[in-house]
Amino acid sequence: MRYSLYYWPTIQGRGEFVRLALEEAGAAYVDVARRAGGEDAMIRMMESRRTATPPFAPPFLKAGKLVIAQTANILLYLGGRHGLAPKNDAGRLWAHQLQLTVTDFVQEIHNTHHPISSALHYVDQEPESLRYSAAFRRYRAPKFLGYFERVLAQNPAGDRFLVGGRMTYPDLSLFQIVEGMRYAFPHAMKRLEKKLPRVVALHNRVAERPRIAAYLASKRRIPFSDIGIYRRYPELDAKS
Amino acid sequence: MRYSLYYWPTIQGRGEFVRLALEEAGAAYVDVARRAGGEDAMIRMMESRRTATPPFAPPFLKAGKLVIAQTANILLYLGGRHGLAPKNDAGRLWAHQLQLTVTDFVQEIHNTHHPISSALHYVDQEPESLRYSAAFRRYRAPKFLGYFERVLAQNPAGDRFLVGGRMTYPDLSLFQIVEGMRYAFPHAMKRLEKKLPRVVALHNRVAERPRIAAYLASKRRIPFSDIGIYRRYPELDAKS
Repeated sequence: MRYSLYYWPTIQGRGEFVRLALEEAGAAYVDVARRAGGEDAMIRMMESRRTATPPFAPPFLKAGKLVIAQTANILLYLGGRHGLAPKNDAGRLWAHQLQLTVTDFVQEIHNTHHPISSALHYVDQEPESLRYSAAFRRYRAPKFLGYFERVLAQNPAGDRFLVGGRMTYPDLSLFQIVEGMRYAFPHAMKRLEKKLPRVVALHNRVAERPRIAAYLASKRRIPFSDIGIYRRYPELDAKS
Repeated sequence: MRYSLYYWPTIQGRGEFVRLALEEAGAAYVDVARRAGGEDAMIRMMESRRTATPPFAPPFLKAGKLVIAQTANILLYLGGRHGLAPKNDAGRLWAHQLQLTVTDFVQEIHNTHHPISSALHYVDQEPESLRYSAAFRRYRAPKFLGYFERVLAQNPAGDRFLVGGRMTYPDLSLFQIVEGMRYAFPHAMKRLEKKLPRVVALHNRVAERPRIAAYLASKRRIPFSDIGIYRRYPELDAKS
């Protein structure tokens, strides 16, 4: 089965968590909105008054007759089909729980430059972004990243992966979080990473997977920029 | 099996979505942190350096040997065990997708009074809350609630429930959203509800379920207050 992924064509964004899973699985997929006319097709699907399961927002994945939205929900589906999640219920729930914590963190990362409204430009909420980001760097980023470090340290199967002894989809997502945080908050991350040896090692382990390495070197990987979730606004990333 | 629910003892918060599912299921459960010493026990479980699956935050549910966190993940588990979700994969994913959209909405409702940081009091982020709430009332609340209205209207099995022809856990959560929004934003909701006949009817349908009605009338239902997710700060709810 060839999947169709629907996501905004110019950013990594939330769609990237899905792309990484599809790439690691070696799955055949079309990144629909990056093709001519694809973005319009995506919006028509979202706005259709006839579909029984309309998505609230991208990303969504078409898999045969299924249309699945919400990043973590897509990964729940793909994880089970492509060996990127444990087969038993306890492991599946644990992997999903970690992914939902990634979701929460991603929302807070987004809010560093849009704390007031996604309907306003950054420049129209810059003072609030400065306040938000100061608290984010001080409290939230260390809390989330420290949590994932602890999950690795407490994994009874060893600290190579988040869930059991094999790679699962939350590992791919944590790789992406590190990539994005390094782009957006290089100074803060340099300080934070001193206390995150296992998270950094996991990031490197994922980056070296043959399919992921090939993907990252390809044109399918959209570069970071100043329009996505992770934005490098130096004023939000104090040097010390 | 008797479940143990772990959540902050003085607020409805995110735990309420789990309580509503447990109550509708007629499941036996202990609301641990509301008992003497229970909150300390909850914090010890969260901070344990030995557990293999530490929760990032409450709520979490102990079910036999399983400890499950993240509200939507708990509902994914309970929904399957107690007939509060479809049995087929497509239906389960659709119900979960809706629940994850509830999760997103709840986070934005919370941010109306804490747009900068959960480490600061409301009074220390009141100007930002005014700006956030204005955009929330204008764009986000209509978008989320209008989406659920549309899901009901487009349900091929009729507009009585969100998923198919029977009640599922996202229906219970949408009931709770309406309750909370009416408490926190009575003026805005009065205006919004004119365009939400199906959402309002669903709210009433859930409220009349015998087990839910009994729960709402009991002391197990914690009242709304000014410390939870839904807070009635009149300055955030313009009269017109």
